[in-house]
Amino acid sequence: MSAMVVTNCPRAERAVVDGLAACGVATVHEAQGRRGLLQSFMRPIYPGAQIAGTAVTVSLPPADNWMIHVAVEQCREGDVVVIAPTSPGDQGFFGELLAQSMIARKVRGLVIEAGTRDTAELTRLRFPVWSRAISAQGTVKETLGAVNLPIVCAGAAVAPGDVIVADDDGVCVVRRAEAADVLAAARAREEKEAGVRARLQAGELGLDVYGMRERLADKGLVYVEHGSLKPEG
Amino acid sequence: MSAMVVTNCPRAERAVVDGLAACGVATVHEAQGRRGLLQSFMRPIYPGAQIAGTAVTVSLPPADNWMIHVAVEQCREGDVVVIAPTSPGDQGFFGELLAQSMIARKVRGLVIEAGTRDTAELTRLRFPVWSRAISAQGTVKETLGAVNLPIVCAGAAVAPGDVIVADDDGVCVVRRAEAADVLAAARAREEKEAGVRARLQAGELGLDVYGMRERLADKGLVYVEHGSLKPEG
Amino acid sequence: MSAMVVTNCPRAERAVVDGLAACGVATVHEAQGRRGLLQSFMRPIYPGAQIAGTAVTVSLPPADNWMIHVAVEQCREGDVVVIAPTSPGDQGFFGELLAQSMIARKVRGLVIEAGTRDTAELTRLRFPVWSRAISAQGTVKETLGAVNLPIVCAGAAVAPGDVIVADDDGVCVVRRAEAADVLAAARAREEKEAGVRARLQAGELGLDVYGMRERLADKGLVYVEHGSLKPEG
Amino acid sequence: MSAMVVTNCPRAERAVVDGLAACGVATVHEAQGRRGLLQSFMRPIYPGAQIAGTAVTVSLPPADNWMIHVAVEQCREGDVVVIAPTSPGDQGFFGELLAQSMIARKVRGLVIEAGTRDTAELTRLRFPVWSRAISAQGTVKETLGAVNLPIVCAGAAVAPGDVIVADDDGVCVVRRAEAADVLAAARAREEKEAGVRARLQAGELGLDVYGMRERLADKGLVYVEHGSLKPEG
Amino acid sequence: MSAMVVTNCPRAERAVVDGLAACGVATVHEAQGRRGLLQSFMRPIYPGAQIAGTAVTVSLPPADNWMIHVAVEQCREGDVVVIAPTSPGDQGFFGELLAQSMIARKVRGLVIEAGTRDTAELTRLRFPVWSRAISAQGTVKETLGAVNLPIVCAGAAVAPGDVIVADDDGVCVVRRAEAADVLAAARAREEKEAGVRARLQAGELGLDVYGMRERLADKGLVYVEHGSLKPEG
Amino acid sequence: MSAMVVTNCPRAERAVVDGLAACGVATVHEAQGRRGLLQSFMRPIYPGAQIAGTAVTVSLPPADNWMIHVAVEQCREGDVVVIAPTSPGDQGFFGELLAQSMIARKVRGLVIEAGTRDTAELTRLRFPVWSRAISAQGTVKETLGAVNLPIVCAGAAVAPGDVIVADDDGVCVVRRAEAADVLAAARAREEKEAGVRARLQAGELGLDVYGMRERLADKGLVYVEHGSLKPEG
Repeated sequence: MSAMVVTNCPRAERAVVDGLAACGVATVHEAQGRRGLLQSFMRPIYPGAQIAGTAVTVSLPPADNWMIHVAVEQCREGDVVVIAPTSPGDQGFFGELLAQSMIARKVRGLVIEAGTRDTAELTRLRFPVWSRAISAQGTVKETLGAVNLPIVCAGAAVAPGDVIVADDDGVCVVRRAEAADVLAAARAREEKEAGVRARLQAGELGLDVYGMRERLADKGLVYVEHGSLKPEG
Repeated sequence: MSAMVVTNCPRAERAVVDGLAACGVATVHEAQGRRGLLQSFMRPIYPGAQIAGTAVTVSLPPADNWMIHVAVEQCREGDVVVIAPTSPGDQGFFGELLAQSMIARKVRGLVIEAGTRDTAELTRLRFPVWSRAISAQGTVKETLGAVNLPIVCAGAAVAPGDVIVADDDGVCVVRRAEAADVLAAARAREEKEAGVRARLQAGELGLDVYGMRERLADKGLVYVEHGSLKPEG
Repeated sequence: MSAMVVTNCPRAERAVVDGLAACGVATVHEAQGRRGLLQSFMRPIYPGAQIAGTAVTVSLPPADNWMIHVAVEQCREGDVVVIAPTSPGDQGFFGELLAQSMIARKVRGLVIEAGTRDTAELTRLRFPVWSRAISAQGTVKETLGAVNLPIVCAGAAVAPGDVIVADDDGVCVVRRAEAADVLAAARAREEKEAGVRARLQAGELGLDVYGMRERLADKGLVYVEHGSLKPEG
Repeated sequence: MSAMVVTNCPRAERAVVDGLAACGVATVHEAQGRRGLLQSFMRPIYPGAQIAGTAVTVSLPPADNWMIHVAVEQCREGDVVVIAPTSPGDQGFFGELLAQSMIARKVRGLVIEAGTRDTAELTRLRFPVWSRAISAQGTVKETLGAVNLPIVCAGAAVAPGDVIVADDDGVCVVRRAEAADVLAAARAREEKEAGVRARLQAGELGLDVYGMRERLADKGLVYVEHGSLKPEG
Repeated sequence: MSAMVVTNCPRAERAVVDGLAACGVATVHEAQGRRGLLQSFMRPIYPGAQIAGTAVTVSLPPADNWMIHVAVEQCREGDVVVIAPTSPGDQGFFGELLAQSMIARKVRGLVIEAGTRDTAELTRLRFPVWSRAISAQGTVKETLGAVNLPIVCAGAAVAPGDVIVADDDGVCVVRRAEAADVLAAARAREEKEAGVRARLQAGELGLDVYGMRERLADKGLVYVEHGSLKPEG
Repeated sequence: MSAMVVTNCPRAERAVVDGLAACGVATVHEAQGRRGLLQSFMRPIYPGAQIAGTAVTVSLPPADNWMIHVAVEQCREGDVVVIAPTSPGDQGFFGELLAQSMIARKVRGLVIEAGTRDTAELTRLRFPVWSRAISAQGTVKETLGAVNLPIVCAGAAVAPGDVIVADDDGVCVVRRAEAADVLAAARAREEKEAGVRARLQAGELGLDVYGMRERLADKGLVYVEHGSLKPEG
């Protein structure tokens, strides 16, 4: 593995990032054509956090968190740290002291395809973490890795400076170059959904709101009254 | 798969359903002879919900939620929608807009052997969902399925009109024809437990309350003082 | 399996146990050289509990909870009951009535490599349980097991009288004979961390606080400005 | 649970069953409209077996195999025993002695949503078993269950007398009343596939054999020469 | 963790070990009262191996296989190496070169609660390995561990010199001090089973061979002719 | 998702690919610095295959295999098809007819992060497949995807034309531009290992061959005679 730190990576624009945060993961994921979702085993350590930030990426050896300390120095306000070990493991790579350091640099949260610990303290600090596991098992500081090279985290490719959106539904990555377009599409989607929502709340059926009845009939959907069904022989 | 919707299925009686809701899953499951429990990977998206309702069943192709829109029209006050895809998958088949539509029809909750999304909004709406996964990954609307045919959901057979009981312990199904008897048995069990509870809270031992000592001795249980044990060679 | 109950096992000292509770799992686990952690699938049924207590161990046949009733009689104030079936299973071996009985004896919580049920009631009672699963599926009372023999629970060896520490990060066991030493080491660790925490909160980097820069350079870590990277051919 | 044995259940016709065996699981599953497949965690203990038989169903308490002994008496030549415990477990419910007894009754194999053991001996005997796990952990004989009532096994509903088809791809159930129709559909499918196979082996493309090119173009598929792609900014 | 190697540990007697190998895992596990079975995720890398040997135990840091090299020196003819990392991981800790070294010392096989690699070569060498995973991912040689201290491997406590029995059904440990008694019990069991086997092969039913009919009737088992069942309303 | 097929992608050189095939996954993975390994849940459908080929990549919607038919046309002699759905699923996307078509084009094998079926036929044809699951569950042909865009498969980034190496240990990807260098490094590694192998087979210890004794002592490794250990109080 390259033992390399890339400095001064360009980030997606702050206003775009904040707009994506407000839309949430499900909307953003739809708006960009259903790409970029991390696998569903990535869960938040407490419910209710909804963030977006620019990725600082970390590639780590198994059971070794040394490079997270290196990565902190590369963090700026509005970043989200994204970590993937080169081999799967559920050790607690991350805890409260590293969070204190990230909070001091105005990092917005952490995404790690591995374990985290000190979850009660992280919850009190409201520093959100999306992880594959919670484990008190610590790690060592023996072997180098890379900061701000492209990585694969929980099945999704993440490049430094990309936008990470995360909430109770999971985590999604948006390419830096596409972030503004995705935000526009996400907002358009929200607007359209607002109209649908009002009609559904008023009791209209999706079958009518979305005009589905004809296509269902074309595909051959049949309605049968319960009383007219014969019992199986 | 039959592309069929069965209409006007008979439901279990409302008063019985509400009685079962009050008893909760563990008691109902015991009262009906330990049948009908869905597998334990079915978890609520937020803690504290405790419901019962009459099943509207939905069988779906993988990664396709079209039939949920069809199913909404078949829902009545007091129903619970129960969904199983014909092949396992963790996509987010269900979200906030569908929930708005179900709330408008006074549906009590959803049980799905797949994924759900918009979980923060569903929590704010207090629309409870028991699912196998949480995922922002959406689905398509391409292929038909069936509404209100018997299905297997998370290992349990569910027929339309059956009673679904769900709380923090999981999900249980009660056959429509047996619901009144199961409720009677569940209440009898609760009454008996109330007496036991008072004695245990007062410090009596289960060994005495349940009269277990003799049978334990018959089976050969031996008590040995710690000090009299020899260390292993 | 021996059908045996060992009585009057010596326990770790109360003051030491309470000191370990205050330190929490991650710190205690580090302080004793990263030994004794139960596997990370052991999760609390509600967030926020942080306890320590002296182990009463229970070895059970699969799907049979009879011996828990036997174990209650052996419990004293300050104990934690630790249960492992002889074959894996996710049934709900434990519920609210057994909890009432343990609360009456001032037991502090339960650790079980299997399932528990009545989780809503247990949460209301604030009786914490760490388990592998939540399931309403009940168990039988047919076959004997052992109380207060050494067991393996979720991958860790536990002897009666050992200290069990448990919080949102998981569960850790400390040998009775080592508990005082581990407490001293844990407190030393906390003191040292307090100084580090203050410096990190003030914005100092871990790279400087821990003096890592030289060793990183020795291992060959390279810093590269983003603009100077060539794109991949 | 009903402690009941249903005797003299009607079976699907032998010639139909044997015809389905020759078609194999994937073809039969397609031919009946993609219904009836057991979940993919059901795996054969050795490769190469391909069977079909008529179901004798067994519902068992967790970790208790007593009812398998009861079920053997109900078996006839050409049957397959299908077993599901009422709560999940990976114990070895089945082994070589039970297999000897089933072989003596000309049973063709076993399907069990749990564990099996003595797999080396079963392989030598060529008695095929599809199971969720392999485990030497034994079971008890304490509690009754049911033989030849409808069950759910690995997510599929199975009734006594239904046809079970099993091979290296997994296990599929065919309703007794539909077996002849499904066989006809499966054979038609095989015939059609034979023609396709010959053309594909000769080097024709599926795009042409199935006539897909127009529909792909209609949906918007675009072909781009590699050299004309711009690198990502 | 103690960085310690214990030398010259006493081993179980060779003749007893070889006797246990011939009995196999399922029989040995039953014969010692169903204790000592490793969890069922421990699988052989090729089918058909059946061994027993005396344990050389290795406790390792995560993703670090240095101590296996240390352990080889402690191995004698007839040993089986048993390895557990202090934190779960599926890396390939073991491969062909280490196997060559163990073969040179007449080690009989390896049991590892982690990953192995070079499985094609290990199969050609007929050096059997039971592992949790197969993975080409390598490990480092940075941190010490322990050889021949008691460990927990896949849920079972193993002490140096204990007997490890392993075959296609899994892995079982027998305490050194109990090995001769367990062998006697296993052989008695085999003898008894031989008589039962002959009767079952001849077509007698287990219900009669084991005399189960009366106890089943006492428990309330009912036989119902299929034709006399009413269909469900 | 882009509905796009990229044609005429450059491939790694055939001689290099064949050289990597001969080295195998574990050696290649080490030789390129432990990068590029797919996750260990990717398993071959039969043991003993060892291949390398140039990647044709396919990104698919969930439960839809239409694009595999499109991909076949892009295949040339020496390719390996690499498939990842945009959402996880274990359906059988691939079977014998598609294999016939690939064999006709001299494709060497298939890697798919999903399910495959017709595994008995594929084994007879000796067409090797590495997959996450085996399942007879079919897929539809409704929605477009992409061929020969970069994908993430089982956690590894794969670009068209990269080298895929696969054997019983799993699957590894080598960047096209690095393939010749990796082959050189792999062969150097094999040569070095040949010398070590001979010494280990002759009975020398790795401790001496690798010269580890001094570093172990420096790190504090202690040897203790078994007889001199005190039993735990």
